[in-house]
Amino acid sequence: MHTGFASDNAATVHPAVLEAIARANQDHAHAYGHDDYTRGIARRLAQAFGTPDAGVYFVFNGTGANVLCLRALCRPGEAVVCTESSHVNTDETAAPEAIAGVKLLTLPSVDGKLRADALERLLAGHIEEHQACPRAVTIAQSTELGSVYSLAELGELGEVVHRNGLLLHVDGSRLANAAAALGTSLADLRAASGADIVSFGGTKNGIMVGEAVVVFTPALDAGMLRLRKQTLQLASKMRYIAAQFDALLTDELWRTNAAHSNAMAARLAAAVRELPGIEVTRPVDANVVFATLPAWATRQLQDEFDFYVWDETSGEVRWMCAWDTSEDDVDRFAAAIARTLANGQPSPRPAAV
Amino acid sequence: MHTGFASDNAATVHPAVLEAIARANQDHAHAYGHDDYTRGIARRLAQAFGTPDAGVYFVFNGTGANVLCLRALCRPGEAVVCTESSHVNTDETAAPEAIAGVKLLTLPSVDGKLRADALERLLAGHIEEHQACPRAVTIAQSTELGSVYSLAELGELGEVVHRNGLLLHVDGSRLANAAAALGTSLADLRAASGADIVSFGGTKNGIMVGEAVVVFTPALDAGMLRLRKQTLQLASKMRYIAAQFDALLTDELWRTNAAHSNAMAARLAAAVRELPGIEVTRPVDANVVFATLPAWATRQLQDEFDFYVWDETSGEVRWMCAWDTSEDDVDRFAAAIARTLANGQPSPRPAAV
Amino acid sequence: MHTGFASDNAATVHPAVLEAIARANQDHAHAYGHDDYTRGIARRLAQAFGTPDAGVYFVFNGTGANVLCLRALCRPGEAVVCTESSHVNTDETAAPEAIAGVKLLTLPSVDGKLRADALERLLAGHIEEHQACPRAVTIAQSTELGSVYSLAELGELGEVVHRNGLLLHVDGSRLANAAAALGTSLADLRAASGADIVSFGGTKNGIMVGEAVVVFTPALDAGMLRLRKQTLQLASKMRYIAAQFDALLTDELWRTNAAHSNAMAARLAAAVRELPGIEVTRPVDANVVFATLPAWATRQLQDEFDFYVWDETSGEVRWMCAWDTSEDDVDRFAAAIARTLANGQPSPRPAAV
Amino acid sequence: MHTGFASDNAATVHPAVLEAIARANQDHAHAYGHDDYTRGIARRLAQAFGTPDAGVYFVFNGTGANVLCLRALCRPGEAVVCTESSHVNTDETAAPEAIAGVKLLTLPSVDGKLRADALERLLAGHIEEHQACPRAVTIAQSTELGSVYSLAELGELGEVVHRNGLLLHVDGSRLANAAAALGTSLADLRAASGADIVSFGGTKNGIMVGEAVVVFTPALDAGMLRLRKQTLQLASKMRYIAAQFDALLTDELWRTNAAHSNAMAARLAAAVRELPGIEVTRPVDANVVFATLPAWATRQLQDEFDFYVWDETSGEVRWMCAWDTSEDDVDRFAAAIARTLANGQPSPRPAAV
Repeated sequence: MHTGFASDNAATVHPAVLEAIARANQDHAHAYGHDDYTRGIARRLAQAFGTPDAGVYFVFNGTGANVLCLRALCRPGEAVVCTESSHVNTDETAAPEAIAGVKLLTLPSVDGKLRADALERLLAGHIEEHQACPRAVTIAQSTELGSVYSLAELGELGEVVHRNGLLLHVDGSRLANAAAALGTSLADLRAASGADIVSFGGTKNGIMVGEAVVVFTPALDAGMLRLRKQTLQLASKMRYIAAQFDALLTDELWRTNAAHSNAMAARLAAAVRELPGIEVTRPVDANVVFATLPAWATRQLQDEFDFYVWDETSGEVRWMCAWDTSEDDVDRFAAAIARTLANGQPSPRPAAV
Repeated sequence: MHTGFASDNAATVHPAVLEAIARANQDHAHAYGHDDYTRGIARRLAQAFGTPDAGVYFVFNGTGANVLCLRALCRPGEAVVCTESSHVNTDETAAPEAIAGVKLLTLPSVDGKLRADALERLLAGHIEEHQACPRAVTIAQSTELGSVYSLAELGELGEVVHRNGLLLHVDGSRLANAAAALGTSLADLRAASGADIVSFGGTKNGIMVGEAVVVFTPALDAGMLRLRKQTLQLASKMRYIAAQFDALLTDELWRTNAAHSNAMAARLAAAVRELPGIEVTRPVDANVVFATLPAWATRQLQDEFDFYVWDETSGEVRWMCAWDTSEDDVDRFAAAIARTLANGQPSPRPAAV
Repeated sequence: MHTGFASDNAATVHPAVLEAIARANQDHAHAYGHDDYTRGIARRLAQAFGTPDAGVYFVFNGTGANVLCLRALCRPGEAVVCTESSHVNTDETAAPEAIAGVKLLTLPSVDGKLRADALERLLAGHIEEHQACPRAVTIAQSTELGSVYSLAELGELGEVVHRNGLLLHVDGSRLANAAAALGTSLADLRAASGADIVSFGGTKNGIMVGEAVVVFTPALDAGMLRLRKQTLQLASKMRYIAAQFDALLTDELWRTNAAHSNAMAARLAAAVRELPGIEVTRPVDANVVFATLPAWATRQLQDEFDFYVWDETSGEVRWMCAWDTSEDDVDRFAAAIARTLANGQPSPRPAAV
Repeated sequence: MHTGFASDNAATVHPAVLEAIARANQDHAHAYGHDDYTRGIARRLAQAFGTPDAGVYFVFNGTGANVLCLRALCRPGEAVVCTESSHVNTDETAAPEAIAGVKLLTLPSVDGKLRADALERLLAGHIEEHQACPRAVTIAQSTELGSVYSLAELGELGEVVHRNGLLLHVDGSRLANAAAALGTSLADLRAASGADIVSFGGTKNGIMVGEAVVVFTPALDAGMLRLRKQTLQLASKMRYIAAQFDALLTDELWRTNAAHSNAMAARLAAAVRELPGIEVTRPVDANVVFATLPAWATRQLQDEFDFYVWDETSGEVRWMCAWDTSEDDVDRFAAAIARTLANGQPSPRPAAV
């Protein structure tokens, strides 16, 4: 029983992941990923993306994955285009700037998606030596706001990116949720945009610690081993990160987990959408529900359930589902929301006499 | 049965660590270390150092820990003194320079220890605006060459560091081995030098992934949460790193593991020290044996056992023991070494007719 | 006779500046500013700001001055607030991010000024370890859009900055123009906001090469010599930069030059403001006029006069006056504008038969 | 009359340089080097190197030039080989590390020259992902210790550099002195090593402020405009730096100046070499003399003449000659040295009674 709708980061680890770790815990193995087991899992992940020759680099966390990608993409003086609400812009403590040395050129976006036409307009601007030169575009799939790019949108965006000589990075900390939502393979999802480099998330989808950077464009692959190490993302006992991806890849556990968390978000949205006093504010494409409800109701619900207020001003809250969110968890939460709103705002406690 | 003497990084994970992880795998928990369990383990680690108020920051790996410490210690224009053979200088792919922006001022050292008198001489040099200004000293305990500073040496060094207004960092990726070797508590070990900040290693001592930065000097502690995140070392599901330290701290498993690996190195050194054709080249203070033997013998042994040639020129090799190296592993390895040397160099294979 | 309204950077050097250089060209002098002459000029500049103890550091250019200030202000994980249109954000090729490692938190602004209330709202937002923490605010006086903060506005802004524990940087590449526009001393101008550190420009006001960073807050002053050198801003033959400031400070040449360029901009604006087909788009507080006029007129005028199109979409152009722009230069330019607009758009050239 | 033997940085500006500046001081000119005059001077400098298509980028100072070159040469994770005594290692306040993010791999050198065989040995070492990968070699010509590489030495070194797939940077802050010493053209000097990028100094050879980065290898040239700006080295009124190089290039003033300062150093060395109590410690290839003499003599001479003690321990001093050091200056200095040594150490002043 979970009362947590704060984040998929707050979830537990899937038992199959712990089992894979236990299985890998045999004998000594070459450190730093130079063991056959890690190499094999890396190959399986590359194959899952339909690109057996892609470079696969396991790393520690999402910010590490993204910063490693940005460092691989850009040279000094180059910049990266993203949306204002993107995680790299809002939630990575300026690591893209301070560690990768890139400027983020931000585009406004209502739904978190970066639009091909907005990108074209930005690139059409006059760029000279006084401006950092756009070298890459980074999008998140699914986005920080829970939206999922369609394959058509990805195709259009990838076309603009590459026609302009730029490179495309996908922050896929929740790529599994997007693939599950679209019902596509990872290979089709990646092929749609022709992404050059992807951060493929594991932590938010049922593993303990670990992400993978997948490099599709050979020119970006040179020097990645060294770059990963310098970017502080080289695990010495790497087989234990590989093992977690072993579990995710086996029988597409990544999809099972992601589809489940997506379904739980849909179930939650459906259960509360029609309630008076609540408004589901964004399309529920993946595993998160955004809604507005009265501040007093939010406060009451937070006594019992864990979730974030997304926007203090508008009262928008974020409810995130995870691989381990059960139907029962959702139903109890939805019931509590309904009950709270039905009861109405409590009268202020009378002052003590 | 292990044939691995390459690195304590190549070892397995202690079963108690996996059990602690499994125990922690209950219910949702606040991400990023803001859960009570992680806080409790952090407090226990601070107490193990005799400093309940020390800041404890779990991170991913040793280079991440060291670079986070260097960033906390130095401002632009400042430098860090270390030995030439130190891991930060030789094996961190210039992350101290490229990520922390510090110059390493290196001192030669035969045994890997940084000497107080050499430090004094360096600091007595004329330093002006054209040189990066020494701000901190970093030492490893135990050192990359397997030596362990005595408490007296630490005291002398810490005195010079602090009398000159500098700060002291200890790269303690094998601090457990040093404490076990000296028979001291972590508290006494830290107090001897008055270290300001320590990287406390776990990965090389039986856990899966994780290190801890411990901040003793309050002025260094401000801003560490943000600095850890920007330095790409913030684990979202941090409780699983905390759990591994839970296991290490319980009944001083860290000491048991370290003492065992130290003992195995001593056993190996004792077994081979008197063999003709071999020379143990360095004191065996901790869990590693350095020795020279003929190149042909090294090649033969490497067919069966995993270890590194440390110096191609001199033929020095490194044999490292781990928490999971058994007496039997050592005895079989020592026997193989003896047998190989006794058999002598094989005649070159005659050319095929 | 000048036809240049492109930039005050395109102007010549004032003869008094060349004379001061020639006068300084005697005998050997200690390099790197350690000569009495440079020290004396630095002291005079500090006194001009009403703060004899302020640290004065001559540097090469405006971006160098600003980046040096940002490096002095911020530690890793900290950010700087500025307006979207500020030079540090738009025209410094990401040097603030790549060299100083700071994230710029931008506020929209119609007239280029950063408003105290907008700053308060930004600071009231929830800031945690996932966001870079605002440490300083940087404003330009006069702004990139030619506006000048009043003393009252500076006071209000400085109050908000300091009440929130932040520090204030003023990008004063055109501080002389602001002081001239307001009719204040540099001392009163700086005191109004309580600025902690200022980039004081010379290049745009009649000298050849050189800016000065003036540090008012003692805590920021430590380590500045070393920081300037590492930030690539230490002139070896510094007396020749000092000499240029000698000329600027003598009889307040800085004010004479700035007042003149301001007056020329006002003259130009007055001459064209009422013309049909033109709109002066912004207040002309300092030495620059922004206006919209038909694209065909802009193209015709650019055949003869040098100036920039500021906004391709709206057709807004920028006309900047300099210390060496004469009344006659302005009058000829204004006459050309009037004539061009009066003549109307030329018919398209008939296609060749 | 000069009493300065401290540095060629302490010298005056050659009158022809001031005249060129005055001549350039006409009309407005496009800023940032986009004016025909600057372009023309850049072309002349490229031609002087025998490579009309080389990229020429004027910058502010030597450290700026070197750091710009290192940023152009290296990507993250790459390193640069130099000698321990090189200026980039000892006198640039860690700007190579902090701003360019490169690790310097230092080789010992008695005379300041980097030897081809020492480089080969370094490159033959096992380099893996844990070490920054050598990407470039930087040498100074002439060196910080006053030695000059012969064309043969340059050829041998360049061959090793390029055969190993590395790139060669020459810190030529005193390249003019080397060319004058060898009696070669800049073109032959550069061709000898096949240097890929050169910092060509002006400040130490009679100009006021300015250096030039010359890029010979086209692949390095892409993005240099932007890189120069971000590296804080873009002069807005660049024509005034160009003018100084105009003067240097006209009638090979650079050679006249350099040959003169070299000759003055030779004259000084010849005059004092045979004196009892003095030892000229290094070959006098260029414009600097190193010598040891008694500490009391150094102290007495420093009352009257300006020069540096190079090594406090050995008593070695550095006497540097400049373009404006006259024969008379040298003779008076030599006479003072002779007189001081002849008089012998003064008796200690008797204590007051």
